[in-house]
Amino acid sequence: MVESYYGDPLLLCPGPLSTRREVRQAMERDFGSRDEAFIALTRRVQDRLLQVANAAQTHAAIPLQGSGTFAVEAALSSLLGPNDHLLILENGAYGRRIETVAARLGIQRTVLRVAENEPLDPAELSKELKRDTTITRIAFVHCETSSGILNPLEAIADVATRHGKSLIVDAMSSFGALPIDLTKLRIEALISSANKCLEGVPGLSFVLVDRNAIPSMEGRCPSLVLDLYAQWAGFEADGQWRFTPPVQVVAALDRALDFLEEEGGPAGRLKRYTANRDLLVVGMERLGFTPFLDPSCQSPIIASFIPPQINGFRLADFHAQLRKRGFVIYPGKLTAIDSLRVGCIGHVRQEDIRNFLCAAEDCLVAVPLSHPVEGVN
Amino acid sequence: MVESYYGDPLLLCPGPLSTRREVRQAMERDFGSRDEAFIALTRRVQDRLLQVANAAQTHAAIPLQGSGTFAVEAALSSLLGPNDHLLILENGAYGRRIETVAARLGIQRTVLRVAENEPLDPAELSKELKRDTTITRIAFVHCETSSGILNPLEAIADVATRHGKSLIVDAMSSFGALPIDLTKLRIEALISSANKCLEGVPGLSFVLVDRNAIPSMEGRCPSLVLDLYAQWAGFEADGQWRFTPPVQVVAALDRALDFLEEEGGPAGRLKRYTANRDLLVVGMERLGFTPFLDPSCQSPIIASFIPPQINGFRLADFHAQLRKRGFVIYPGKLTAIDSLRVGCIGHVRQEDIRNFLCAAEDCLVAVPLSHPVEGVN
Repeated sequence: MVESYYGDPLLLCPGPLSTRREVRQAMERDFGSRDEAFIALTRRVQDRLLQVANAAQTHAAIPLQGSGTFAVEAALSSLLGPNDHLLILENGAYGRRIETVAARLGIQRTVLRVAENEPLDPAELSKELKRDTTITRIAFVHCETSSGILNPLEAIADVATRHGKSLIVDAMSSFGALPIDLTKLRIEALISSANKCLEGVPGLSFVLVDRNAIPSMEGRCPSLVLDLYAQWAGFEADGQWRFTPPVQVVAALDRALDFLEEEGGPAGRLKRYTANRDLLVVGMERLGFTPFLDPSCQSPIIASFIPPQINGFRLADFHAQLRKRGFVIYPGKLTAIDSLRVGCIGHVRQEDIRNFLCAAEDCLVAVPLSHPVEGVN
Repeated sequence: MVESYYGDPLLLCPGPLSTRREVRQAMERDFGSRDEAFIALTRRVQDRLLQVANAAQTHAAIPLQGSGTFAVEAALSSLLGPNDHLLILENGAYGRRIETVAARLGIQRTVLRVAENEPLDPAELSKELKRDTTITRIAFVHCETSSGILNPLEAIADVATRHGKSLIVDAMSSFGALPIDLTKLRIEALISSANKCLEGVPGLSFVLVDRNAIPSMEGRCPSLVLDLYAQWAGFEADGQWRFTPPVQVVAALDRALDFLEEEGGPAGRLKRYTANRDLLVVGMERLGFTPFLDPSCQSPIIASFIPPQINGFRLADFHAQLRKRGFVIYPGKLTAIDSLRVGCIGHVRQEDIRNFLCAAEDCLVAVPLSHPVEGVN
């Protein structure tokens, strides 16, 4: 039974990603979660997460068990009070998820939505903040993993700062690769997870919270386990997690951060991802796939493509054929268009992208042959 | 820097525990969380969790990211509605945690508390249910990890069934070792986690929910990420987790379940744990430690001890000395008494307990010598 899922494909996904063997090997150990060694490990990871965003002086790193959405809900429910009015800037599925979380929590909210292929517009934000002065906080997704679009973090942060509004950023798939300097940008809460550009394994998310905002979180969160204030207070008290942490996942993240440093930090990583993306986009275009986004807003994280018009081509078959050749890619997450997504992140090198493109070309030939042609030319 | 926490001690803890090398090695792989291989893996783990409690016909296994307390909050917030009245039976810190979660969620509740060294009393439960007929549900902890006391699951379930009340059981540190047969006991929700008697690694909890209770959960949970109905519906729809799962932790649990089978299921595991406990209790008594519990209610999971009256003996020093010798034990979690806890669970054999007892004896000699004697005889 086990054989069916042995033999690991390359994951060109939005995450979980292909990680380094050394990162996974860091999980070959047991840790007592209240033991001094693990307390030191947690502390070191917290310090290193802050360093990634140059936030050691300004923010606290609050790790949380669970996926990125756990941290999104924790941040919204711990930061926003009954008098808040949240403006959500939205151009994709993860922006909509912020809206879903806010709706579930009963947070007063306004949504400013643009098309999935348009970056968020700081000028529109400015207009909306002038129009509705009851807005207290703004939330958006830095890099929309659903399409791959990159939103203008610095310009949005500037507008928010000028209007004196707090900013919550979902940096799930940008943190660790795209430049984020929290001494330069005023961001109240920056949310991310271990298994995207940090190239750790999934099971752990975190929020970098402005130290000045921490006191206001006390007693706000309706949930016990998602209460970021209590989570922070626990670490402050004795360095321990309030509830059992995924110890091996923390160890893997620590090891992954070694490799981030070795690569030259986010700038070095960005260079590799950008080269991956460039190779990918050119190669996919050559195969007849159309990039969903304009190059000006295409992130170096993940790219969406519209498949070529070939008789009998079916996305599901293409995925299955690629899977047989050892590549996992995900369906697109666009609202109205059938698409596919290919990730550029994780332990993925130029030669991996080249191999993927070869396999994709091969599959384009194989796919129509393996099924009866459906259309008539 | 890394050296300081290399060299793994034996964890005689309430969890995370010492696990088998093979279980940790199962984490040496990457998985696409929406890939067919991982969907099959998840499904297999769900089926096997149900088998452990003979619940394949009656319950659904709903895994959840995060520690056991995440699952406790998910279960209470997904199952209880505004018209519910929860009776919490309490004799330790994890019973109090159920109370804390219920309080945070604004659930109407009554607490029936006994001393930490007294098992919960089914007769008292029966009396309370007669006295207050507004109670709709009952919650309690099967094995109180804070003291090691074992509560009478079957007798409590019998009383609940006779009164027609739903039962929620925190089986965190009993599931996988103590016998629980859900075709015989009427339990609405049984909560546990991967890293106790199942001997997996932490990062994953789960709730076995009575299939008849599932429809009532729809739309109840105030949280998005802790919504067990939505989590269940996600698995039903396509076998996928709603939000990124800790893929390696799931793989480790699957491997751990192989070893549970190999050991003869919960009955085989119980035998080993019981032998560990018997050896431990006799050995600790010989060293002058007093078991906190009467043997009649001492679980084979973890045991609390009151230290001997030796001049200059300090629990913190004893812990530190044991740590140096490669054993991690945790302080007691009793309200009023200084105590320590030693776990019998995890990949721990008779020879490990013997080694621990030798080390403990050694530390009893070393501890007073390493510090000035504080008292005067």
